[in-house]
Amino acid sequence: MTTLRDIGEDALIARLVSLVPRDEQPAAGPGDDCAVIDPGPGRDTLQLLKTDAVVGRVHFLPDTPARAVGWKAAARVVSDFAAMGGRPERFLVTVALSAETELIWVEDLYRGIGDCLRTFGAVLAGGETTSVPPGCVPVISIAATGSVRRQHLVLRSTAQPGHRLFVTGTLGGSGLTKHLHFTPRINETSWLVTHFKPSAMLDLSDGLAQDLPRLATASGCGFVLDEAGLPLTPGCDIAQALGDGEDFEMLFTLEPDRVAALLTAWPGVFPELPLTVIGHMVAAGAGAMLTGGWDHFKTDR
Amino acid sequence: MTTLRDIGEDALIARLVSLVPRDEQPAAGPGDDCAVIDPGPGRDTLQLLKTDAVVGRVHFLPDTPARAVGWKAAARVVSDFAAMGGRPERFLVTVALSAETELIWVEDLYRGIGDCLRTFGAVLAGGETTSVPPGCVPVISIAATGSVRRQHLVLRSTAQPGHRLFVTGTLGGSGLTKHLHFTPRINETSWLVTHFKPSAMLDLSDGLAQDLPRLATASGCGFVLDEAGLPLTPGCDIAQALGDGEDFEMLFTLEPDRVAALLTAWPGVFPELPLTVIGHMVAAGAGAMLTGGWDHFKTDR
Repeated sequence: MTTLRDIGEDALIARLVSLVPRDEQPAAGPGDDCAVIDPGPGRDTLQLLKTDAVVGRVHFLPDTPARAVGWKAAARVVSDFAAMGGRPERFLVTVALSAETELIWVEDLYRGIGDCLRTFGAVLAGGETTSVPPGCVPVISIAATGSVRRQHLVLRSTAQPGHRLFVTGTLGGSGLTKHLHFTPRINETSWLVTHFKPSAMLDLSDGLAQDLPRLATASGCGFVLDEAGLPLTPGCDIAQALGDGEDFEMLFTLEPDRVAALLTAWPGVFPELPLTVIGHMVAAGAGAMLTGGWDHFKTDR
Repeated sequence: MTTLRDIGEDALIARLVSLVPRDEQPAAGPGDDCAVIDPGPGRDTLQLLKTDAVVGRVHFLPDTPARAVGWKAAARVVSDFAAMGGRPERFLVTVALSAETELIWVEDLYRGIGDCLRTFGAVLAGGETTSVPPGCVPVISIAATGSVRRQHLVLRSTAQPGHRLFVTGTLGGSGLTKHLHFTPRINETSWLVTHFKPSAMLDLSDGLAQDLPRLATASGCGFVLDEAGLPLTPGCDIAQALGDGEDFEMLFTLEPDRVAALLTAWPGVFPELPLTVIGHMVAAGAGAMLTGGWDHFKTDR
């Protein structure tokens, strides 16, 4: 019998979405960071929908402080709204926990979720608590609504050959501490969509080696990556920058004639966050290939 | 240390929602079947948000057909939209599964979700797949948006003393097969909100003994229950009707002067589904108490 380990995450998702009814004319592809709901012409604001989950012994450890788990669970979702050029609004939090879970752990989890919602101006709209059998890991599933102004919406599928590839921050080594305490780049994307709207964007969750090919494939492009020029987290090498995952930095593309102006303006607005050109898009079939990165069903940690 | 088993589900939720920012003026209480988003005066349609989850060895067994699990997972959410007088629109499906899960199981799960979405005119808008460690049970978490016309919205918190208590269908014994194959009562609630709008409503998921007190407490009322008059599933006794849970029938209240007209009209519209008056609301502090029903963290199956 074929298992999920045999097929991997992207192929699994492609098979599953073919089995259920979908919007016939979605405003964004099924693989984008958020679903986009267009209320129709004449309305300036589009709704964004996102769901995500963090799982014990996969995304955090038994001794990870619960407040950090809560921050991470909510901040991952905020990062996805940022990647569309939008903002989060209302959260639905589902927790599946064993009855033996300590109350203080769950309260700290919610305090961490609350920290994140307050920081980014979102609210809790609902939730669900359910049990898992003794010995099973906790699962925290978060769905959220958000919004984006029509002219600010950025998809991952609209890069074009010749556009330059940018990444914020540094890559690699997130597993040490950053994956629990990262700041979603929503201030940066809010500024970008107003002043230098990217032609395509996503947030780096599974590692550049997984996520860059996704952006390229969705856009019908290839890519050329300047591996030697990647902004490495201190102590990390290129393989870690490509494959560690959970960077939660923004990967985006921009028309070449706007590159110089962006690189000039950025340090004055975000002096503490590097912005690096790491390559460019080319025609489909040309350019490089990448392997590695995080696949939930294929990767053994 | 206090565990979730010590405190129970309702007390847990009350503590958790106090730890996170919420809407200052929500259109429905945090304990209602769905969150209600009011886009403001002048707009006739309110948005509904809901999240729910089903868990292996809690809501289904390892040998339960996956297609039935998928139907159940989605139909539970449809039932919550029905309980507000609304309809479901867009679904977000998160599955947390071990890498050893057979592909055919997950495909059948999605076929079941697809069956339900097609039946009730909803679509898949997005989703997430993630792994759980080997040996941990599958968790299927479903969030959804829906809508309700402003004048059709029914809350659980608006029953008044004197209003009569109704229940659709029969109660008890759902665990045999009904819990996997139930039909959400959305055709019935759509008709009700148009012709005999309930003063309060919820869907029976944790058993009448849990859910009736919730409706009463939310409404600031007590209740009198005619236990001998409960519509029992054949082969079930009153204790099962009160405590088995997962009936997914509708519990609602109606002004007494409309009761006769509803009981006269109902059989002509829904000839195969019983509708029974099971009691009435009274002032807070008066009336009966109930114990039993399903608590995720206190009940041992």
